[in-house]
Amino acid sequence: PARKTTLRTILAQNLRRLRAERGWSQEDLGAESGLHRTFIGAVERSETNVSVDNIERLAAALGVEGWTLLKR
Amino acid sequence: PARKTTLRTILAQNLRRLRAERGWSQEDLGAESGLHRTFIGAVERSETNVSVDNIERLAAALGVEGWTLLKR
Repeated sequence: PARKTTLRTILAQNLRRLRAERGWSQEDLGAESGLHRTFIGAVERSETNVSVDNIERLAAALGVEGWTLLKR
Repeated sequence: PARKTTLRTILAQNLRRLRAERGWSQEDLGAESGLHRTFIGAVERSETNVSVDNIERLAAALGVEGWTLLKR
């Protein structure tokens, strides 16, 4: 089973919230960020140990600063 | 050559600053975080695409919240 850290969980919750606020599907966020929708899904389930480069991509797609994705 | 993103660079600068404030060597931070000193060095040179789990480890070792490592 995937190790789920606190910071992963915070990232997952923020991603889900920000995506929902924009009315975007996982596929929409995937298209905006250049990442696959299955990757977005895995991040939102805290299953993926996301890298800082991909945090930056996700933040850019959502129009927020990177650090905000890790803040509770 | 390693791709160096903005967010990597911010992380590198914060890590170096916080480590210096504590008077720790890269080896000290490695010992505190359970990561190798060569990894710490690579992060501080923005050469490594650090994962969220390792951001969490580094933050815990430094006694700060994870998001603060990504804030300019």
